[in-house]
Amino acid sequence: MASDQNEVSKGLEWRIKVADGSSEILVPEAKSAATRVLLCLKAFIVGLASKVWKFLLKAWDVGVDDPRKVIHCLKVGMALTVVSLFYYMRPLYDGVGGTAMWAIMTVVVVFENTVGATICKSLNRMSGTFLAGFLAVGVQWIASQSGNRFEPIIIGASVFLLASAATFSRFIPSVKARFDYGAMIFILTFSLVSISGYRVDEVFNLAHRRLSTIIIGTTLCIIVSMLVCPIWAGQELFTLIFRNMDKLADSLEGCVGEYFKDGDDIDDSDKECHKKLQGYKCVLSSKAAEDSMANFARWEPAHGGFNFRHPWKQYIKIGASMRSCAYCIEALNSCINSENQANEYIKKHISNNCLKVSSNSSGVIRELALTIKTMKKSSNIHFLVGDMNNAVQELQPEAAETPENKTTEQQPASKTVVTIMPIVDIIPLVTLTSLLIEIVSRINGIVDAVEELADLAEFKPASNDKCGKDDDQLNNNFLPDQQKDKDTMKKVFPRV
Amino acid sequence: MASDQNEVSKGLEWRIKVADGSSEILVPEAKSAATRVLLCLKAFIVGLASKVWKFLLKAWDVGVDDPRKVIHCLKVGMALTVVSLFYYMRPLYDGVGGTAMWAIMTVVVVFENTVGATICKSLNRMSGTFLAGFLAVGVQWIASQSGNRFEPIIIGASVFLLASAATFSRFIPSVKARFDYGAMIFILTFSLVSISGYRVDEVFNLAHRRLSTIIIGTTLCIIVSMLVCPIWAGQELFTLIFRNMDKLADSLEGCVGEYFKDGDDIDDSDKECHKKLQGYKCVLSSKAAEDSMANFARWEPAHGGFNFRHPWKQYIKIGASMRSCAYCIEALNSCINSENQANEYIKKHISNNCLKVSSNSSGVIRELALTIKTMKKSSNIHFLVGDMNNAVQELQPEAAETPENKTTEQQPASKTVVTIMPIVDIIPLVTLTSLLIEIVSRINGIVDAVEELADLAEFKPASNDKCGKDDDQLNNNFLPDQQKDKDTMKKVFPRV
Repeated sequence: MASDQNEVSKGLEWRIKVADGSSEILVPEAKSAATRVLLCLKAFIVGLASKVWKFLLKAWDVGVDDPRKVIHCLKVGMALTVVSLFYYMRPLYDGVGGTAMWAIMTVVVVFENTVGATICKSLNRMSGTFLAGFLAVGVQWIASQSGNRFEPIIIGASVFLLASAATFSRFIPSVKARFDYGAMIFILTFSLVSISGYRVDEVFNLAHRRLSTIIIGTTLCIIVSMLVCPIWAGQELFTLIFRNMDKLADSLEGCVGEYFKDGDDIDDSDKECHKKLQGYKCVLSSKAAEDSMANFARWEPAHGGFNFRHPWKQYIKIGASMRSCAYCIEALNSCINSENQANEYIKKHISNNCLKVSSNSSGVIRELALTIKTMKKSSNIHFLVGDMNNAVQELQPEAAETPENKTTEQQPASKTVVTIMPIVDIIPLVTLTSLLIEIVSRINGIVDAVEELADLAEFKPASNDKCGKDDDQLNNNFLPDQQKDKDTMKKVFPRV
Repeated sequence: MASDQNEVSKGLEWRIKVADGSSEILVPEAKSAATRVLLCLKAFIVGLASKVWKFLLKAWDVGVDDPRKVIHCLKVGMALTVVSLFYYMRPLYDGVGGTAMWAIMTVVVVFENTVGATICKSLNRMSGTFLAGFLAVGVQWIASQSGNRFEPIIIGASVFLLASAATFSRFIPSVKARFDYGAMIFILTFSLVSISGYRVDEVFNLAHRRLSTIIIGTTLCIIVSMLVCPIWAGQELFTLIFRNMDKLADSLEGCVGEYFKDGDDIDDSDKECHKKLQGYKCVLSSKAAEDSMANFARWEPAHGGFNFRHPWKQYIKIGASMRSCAYCIEALNSCINSENQANEYIKKHISNNCLKVSSNSSGVIRELALTIKTMKKSSNIHFLVGDMNNAVQELQPEAAETPENKTTEQQPASKTVVTIMPIVDIIPLVTLTSLLIEIVSRINGIVDAVEELADLAEFKPASNDKCGKDDDQLNNNFLPDQQKDKDTMKKVFPRV
């Protein structure tokens, strides 16, 4: 005790001495160092807290955007809790024993967001396990017949060969698209069963229990995913396609409309409008989503208006034709935003015609979206397509009149003069026109793809009431303009 | 023996009787049914064999296209065989016991094609397991303190809550990009350990063994994937980007060249040429590959010319700017293949200028590809960009001369007349011109992105010898044409 006190007082004395000797030099520095550390710590904690807060806000947004994601999470939790009953209940536990953990693992790994993905993974897991277990038991039997010395060699060689072959098969596109997970499970089960067999001595039992627990897990997953608020990959694909069509129509119409509208009337809805214009970008970037959903959709049983053999592949074709249209809208968008300003005089005069083409073609796209949405053949799509093609014909007024224009080569002086202007003034307008023409021809591609879908999926014709009304309305909208445009075009573009 | 013989002879007799009694009616039908079955079987076998054969051919092609895939498969086989040594060797087996299967499972699940993907999955698996094991042991301890009645309820509730939360986190984009697999492993381990703990009674041991076997498995995977013919995600991304640039340059040049070349000289290399023209489609569809490889590349240690903090994200930006250029080339391609035929007279006269723009701009893209490939700042990229921009200026000759063309609105008659032709004859050419101008402006975007990369990754300047030569060569190629084009353009396009 005494020596302890002595040491403490020494320490105190020493500390005080040091403090005395250099109080004016060191103490402020030490203080500032301490405060600096504190400040750093505070900044770190504040930074961390704000990061966590931002992350939580983002997570909240994800949940609000699509509440079904939250439901999916609850479904996973539910399935896991149900499967863990196998552990808690004695009779069930005695049935499958310690391998109940395979069932838990299966639920975690196999449960996906959509029914199709869950079924696809479940079937892959079951067939991969079955095939591998079967082969592993066979290999194990052969190995056990060949004596203690060769047993590990035979097993090792078979694992090496089959694992390599199955891994390689995962690189082949057709296998990768459908059986990627199955091939992995094949390697896993084969290695596990055949290697464990070397020690466990009851390889058949192991294979059997693994298979039965996996069947329990996958069945549970499929049942929960199909019965509790199911999310069907097919339905998702279907919705994605017709929503993207609407977006495409909005951006096409908005893009051309924005270009031709007077500069004065910029209003509050500018941001909303800008968002609409960018809709085509969703189409550009949705290829991966379409492919994977079409791939999962074909595993799904009949649901909603879709039967089991619904032509899901056709939606990929429709998506591709929409994307090719979106490429052109992208070019159109940049041509509209380019620095070259068009001559206001011509711009005003072809504006009606361009607006008509854009509104007619977005009308066609919207009608196609409606066809898909209602799953009914539209009766007036042909009128709309006709209107659109007529409007395009009016955009290129000379094409029909001088089909032999190739023969006029090198005789340009023989034409009559009407209006003269620098070519730079018309470059943006001619480009716009030409891109609009190209867009219309690509829209015809979408029309063909949707009609093919309607045939393949046997869409019924729509009732006539609504369509007739639509038709009238469209005619009312466009006919006066059409007449006006024809006159204008004759004035402006007879010969340039 | 006697009764046996009797039965046999009876059988024979009966068979003969039947054959006698109805030989003329039944035999031909039976024969045809049998042959039909045989034919069906034969057709089935032949069909199956041809399918298998096709599949094998496809697999062979995959292997020949990229032999590294075959090497990867052998690596997986090797890693599995090595890890199975844990089972065969008594001292190792005694160390980890029956849980050695976790190591096998880890190898199968974690081993990916590229080093980055393997490291990413390994770290995810390790951290997910560690975090979940830690939490599960804690929950298990709390549950065991609260009595037999509440234990399963506490465990069940915690599994439900944590599994739901972790599943939800997988929907958040920033988590999904990096920790998707880790979140899954977290759910898996937490459920396994905490549920097993209810029965196993040595939950700490289970968690510890699971963690140590997983560390063994992941370490083995990382070592094999890094030491045996490593495939680096970073290197792959790097190669993809500069190859895509070359493809972009080829299609741009080929596309314009194809349009302006005389119809006569169609040669044998047509298919090869067509394939080149379609190169931009690779750029359009490589977004997913770029994203995933950039994501994996950042986990990789320094390799080749890349250090650990190489700016991989910048490659995604370069890819995006290339894609925006490819959209325009797509539009250009369709404008060139459209039905509207241009006036041959003007076509011939602007051909030199267009060809110059296209060859200059593909030259710029190729130089950028070379910059990336050699990782050296190009000293003549600015000359090339200057040439390209000059060539574009010559394509729009009026723009510089009449900057006040907005004020000439509605006074078109004051211009002088030089050449008159129907507007439909120049639509394709004006569109082509305008798209070329847009393409050049987008190429400037690629140039900026590559220069940013050169700054971020601290590329060294290239040695001057080669560049000086290139520069001279380029000047020699283009100067005479340039002069000629300027004259031509003044003749054709002073005022249209």
